[in-house]
Amino acid sequence: MIKVGIMGYGNLGKGVECAIKQNPDMELAAVFTRRNPEDVKILTEGARVYKACDAAAHKADVDVLIICGGSATDLPEQTPEYAGMFNVVDSFDTHARIPEHFENVEAAAKAAGTTAVISAGWDPGMFSLNRVYAESILPEGETYTFWGRGVSQGHSDAVRRIEGVLDARQYTIPVDAALDAVRSGSAPELSTREKHTRLVYVVAEDGADQAKITEEIVTMKNYFDEYDTTVEFIDEETMARDHSGIPHGGFVIRSGRTGWEGENNHVVEYKLQLDSNPEFTSSVLVAVARATYRMAQAGMHGAKTVFDIPPAMLSLKSPEELRKEML
Amino acid sequence: MIKVGIMGYGNLGKGVECAIKQNPDMELAAVFTRRNPEDVKILTEGARVYKACDAAAHKADVDVLIICGGSATDLPEQTPEYAGMFNVVDSFDTHARIPEHFENVEAAAKAAGTTAVISAGWDPGMFSLNRVYAESILPEGETYTFWGRGVSQGHSDAVRRIEGVLDARQYTIPVDAALDAVRSGSAPELSTREKHTRLVYVVAEDGADQAKITEEIVTMKNYFDEYDTTVEFIDEETMARDHSGIPHGGFVIRSGRTGWEGENNHVVEYKLQLDSNPEFTSSVLVAVARATYRMAQAGMHGAKTVFDIPPAMLSLKSPEELRKEML
Repeated sequence: MIKVGIMGYGNLGKGVECAIKQNPDMELAAVFTRRNPEDVKILTEGARVYKACDAAAHKADVDVLIICGGSATDLPEQTPEYAGMFNVVDSFDTHARIPEHFENVEAAAKAAGTTAVISAGWDPGMFSLNRVYAESILPEGETYTFWGRGVSQGHSDAVRRIEGVLDARQYTIPVDAALDAVRSGSAPELSTREKHTRLVYVVAEDGADQAKITEEIVTMKNYFDEYDTTVEFIDEETMARDHSGIPHGGFVIRSGRTGWEGENNHVVEYKLQLDSNPEFTSSVLVAVARATYRMAQAGMHGAKTVFDIPPAMLSLKSPEELRKEML
Repeated sequence: MIKVGIMGYGNLGKGVECAIKQNPDMELAAVFTRRNPEDVKILTEGARVYKACDAAAHKADVDVLIICGGSATDLPEQTPEYAGMFNVVDSFDTHARIPEHFENVEAAAKAAGTTAVISAGWDPGMFSLNRVYAESILPEGETYTFWGRGVSQGHSDAVRRIEGVLDARQYTIPVDAALDAVRSGSAPELSTREKHTRLVYVVAEDGADQAKITEEIVTMKNYFDEYDTTVEFIDEETMARDHSGIPHGGFVIRSGRTGWEGENNHVVEYKLQLDSNPEFTSSVLVAVARATYRMAQAGMHGAKTVFDIPPAMLSLKSPEELRKEML
C-alpha cells in the first residue's frame, strides 16, 4: 500500500481523499491542516488529522505528500519546504512562474533525496502532455487550447467585488465556430474575442442599477474587455440550484501536415468535460502520486513534471497487464 | 544529428522518409529493401539504398532503424533479428500477439544491449497511451474505442476477392448516436452493430450481378455480418478520383466518476482525423525513434513500448523549453 498524505483540506484536498478511495493500492495516511485539526472533519474512517506544522514528525508514515494549496502564495513556499522531507506532488498552475518554482523545488528535492512532481493537473498537466505528444508527432502545425465550458473562480470573484453585486458566477465558453475552423485543419489565426465568450450570472442587491453593473463587467480591464460578455441577472435560489457546481474542461487541438510537400493534413484533439474541476485535478494528483512513489523507489530523485513520467508508472496495472490489455 | 535507417520502403517507409525531413535533429542514413536497390527510387537526395541482407554491414551508420514491414509475417521475424544489431522501432499491430512479440524482441535486445520499441503508431500507440492515462486518472469508469471514418485495407481486400468485383474500398464509420451516448457519461453497453457501420464502394465487372455481390458482402462472416453495411456501385473514374486516399482516425473516450459516492462525472476524449493513415503512423514512428535513441544513450536497453517512454524524450525541445513553453 502506498501511504498518501494530504496537505491542506479544501476542495482539492477533499478531492484527493475521494480519489484515494478509488485506488486499491493506496491508503490515506494523514491529513495536515493549518486550521485546528479538531475543526477539520474528514470522510475517511480511522484516518488522522494533524497540524501542518507537525508534519515533520509524521515523515515515516507518509510515502507521498500531495500538497493541496493555492498557487499564488501557498505552493511557492510549501512545495520546496515539504520536498525537503517528503516525496511530494503539487498542482502549481501559475504558468509564467513554473521555471522558477521548478528550480526551487529541484534544489530542495536534490538535497533531501526526494522525488517532487510539480504542476500536475489538467492545465498544466494533461493538456500539457497532449501539446507535447501532438507537437512531437506533427512538428509542422499549429496547436490551439480552448477552455470551457467552465467556471472561472477568478472572474467570478472579480464580478463579486462590484458594488451592488451579491453573488456571481462566470462561465468561459469556447466559440463553436472557432473550434470548427481549427478542426477543419485550416490553421486559422484567432483573436482572443474569436476563441471564447464569457457568460456571467449575477445576483444583484434589490434596487441595484443593473445597467451600470453590466457596463462595469463588460468593460473590466484584463478580465472582460477583450471578450464578448453576456450578463444575466438571476435570483439567489436560481444561483444555488443551477450554478453551485464547479464544472470545467476544454480542448487541445493540433492540426499538422505530413508528406514530402506537406500535402496531407491531420487533426489531433484532446477534450475534457469535467463535472468538478477540483475533483478531476485531484484524480490526476493521485495517479501522479503513484508514479512519484515508484520514481522515488527507482532512485529518480529531484523535481519532475508530467513530461518526465513514463506513463506505465501512473497505472494500477503491471507492465505485463498494460501490454496485454491496453496496447 | 540522429541517423535513422528505414527497413522496407512501402507506404510506411516513404512516410518515415517524409517525417525525417520535418525533424531538424534527424537525417536519413539509409534505406534497406528486399527489392533490387536500383529499382527503389527514394525522395531524399544523397541518401543510399541498400539490400536488406546487407544491413549488418551498415550498423555503424545507423543510430535507430525504423522497421516498416507488415505485422502478419515481416515484423515477428524482422524486429527480433534487427534488434540484435540496431536500436529499432516497429509498429507491430496484431494486438493479441503483442506479449509474444515483446518477449522475442526483449530477448534479442537484452542480449545485444540495444533499445527496441514495439507497437508504436496510433492504435496501438497513441490510442493505447490515452487509454492508460484516462484509466489511471479515472479508475472507476468505462473506456470506448471507435475507429473511423477511415479505410480498412483488410475489408477492402476481402471484397475484392468476390467474383465480379474489380475494385473496392471499405470505410469504417463510427455511429454518431453511439458517440453521443458515450460522451453523455451514461456509460452505455454498445453492441458491435451499434458502434460502427460499414460503407463499401465497389467497381463491378460489366454485367455482374450487383444484387448477388451486395448479398455476399453484407453476409460475409467476421467481416460484415455483425455490421450494418451499405454497398454502393461506382465506376472506375469515381473510385480513382474520390477514393484514392487512405484516411483514418477514431476516438478513445473514457467516462468516469469521482467524489465520495461517485457523484461527479467526467469525460475524456482523444480524437484523430487523419488524411493519411500510413503517414501519421510514420510520424509517430519518427518521434519514437528520437526517444529510442535517447533511451539507448541513457542505458535503458531492452524491449519497450510507448508506456515506457517519458514524454519529454519524444520532443525536439529541451526539458527547460518544455517546462517554459508547453507546461
